[in-house]
Amino acid sequence: MDKLRKHIEEIISLSDEEFDHIKTFFTLKRVRKHQFLVQEGDVANHEYLILTGVFRMFYLDKEGKDHIIQFAGENWWMADYQAYFNRSIATLYILCMEDAEVLCTTLDGREKLSVDLHKMEHFFRVKLTKGYVALQQRIISLLSATPQDRYEEFGRLYPHLMQRIPKKYIAEYLGVSRETLSRLYSR
Amino acid sequence: MDKLRKHIEEIISLSDEEFDHIKTFFTLKRVRKHQFLVQEGDVANHEYLILTGVFRMFYLDKEGKDHIIQFAGENWWMADYQAYFNRSIATLYILCMEDAEVLCTTLDGREKLSVDLHKMEHFFRVKLTKGYVALQQRIISLLSATPQDRYEEFGRLYPHLMQRIPKKYIAEYLGVSRETLSRLYSR
Repeated sequence: MDKLRKHIEEIISLSDEEFDHIKTFFTLKRVRKHQFLVQEGDVANHEYLILTGVFRMFYLDKEGKDHIIQFAGENWWMADYQAYFNRSIATLYILCMEDAEVLCTTLDGREKLSVDLHKMEHFFRVKLTKGYVALQQRIISLLSATPQDRYEEFGRLYPHLMQRIPKKYIAEYLGVSRETLSRLYSR
Repeated sequence: MDKLRKHIEEIISLSDEEFDHIKTFFTLKRVRKHQFLVQEGDVANHEYLILTGVFRMFYLDKEGKDHIIQFAGENWWMADYQAYFNRSIATLYILCMEDAEVLCTTLDGREKLSVDLHKMEHFFRVKLTKGYVALQQRIISLLSATPQDRYEEFGRLYPHLMQRIPKKYIAEYLGVSRETLSRLYSR
């Protein structure tokens, strides 16, 4: 739980009493490489803060082709947020790419914490703001950027993950061939 | 300002005193059709709540081709959020498509209101949550959906705008030709 406190205190400061209350809303979960954290059709009632490990979130279309929406590593929050916030069924997959530890919380927990502590509502708002901006960048990148631009943006977004994600998935995320990716790497 | 109060009270309830405080953070601005609310290179220090009118947000790539990121109508919030939240220079354009009235606020205003009133922090968090989910849907749609899927999603997202946005821009947003769009309409 030390990591949770450190993570939250990057944005707000907490008393010991406040943190004792906060931590009751989180439970630790270990996930093995190749396991799914979320699968299409699950009740997506948890959100995850990644303590260690790397995950890949993707959408599987009607033809069975997968489309990578994002990766996530340490200190990222992850969920099928559409399903989570709307209390509906997951339409996405979240797959573990390295043995991992995550902290789980629920939407009820998030909302209760936000009511109990104004500063936690602030924390979640700041996190959402960053997430919103990252998604808007991903849209601009999908709409218009060149492979070179997308590669550079990937490096900015995931500086610690570039060595940990197999190139095959990076190429898929960027929408380029393995050969193009090799050329981008060598520049 | 009645519209502002009604809009906020869809999520939280306010006393007259609270609303008197809140409204001091907003100023009314009228925008004519074809005017830009934001242009690339502007200091993007305002965020807009649309009272009347329709806007189109787009990105202009290096070749001068524009890419529509989203539309927005009554009761939508709009800004180049990356620039706004990071206090940097706009990289997007927001163009007025119908004579419009918007309420403007600043990042300092948003943050001050969130500190002053826990419930306003809650309001902004709920709005961001909805925005986040809409962007995630747009990404999934861009990555994988068929023109038919994208058209149906557009109808869900912008039910009141379908008749007000010229078909040319809807086709561009969906990434389909005018002919394909006509076929989708006729189904």
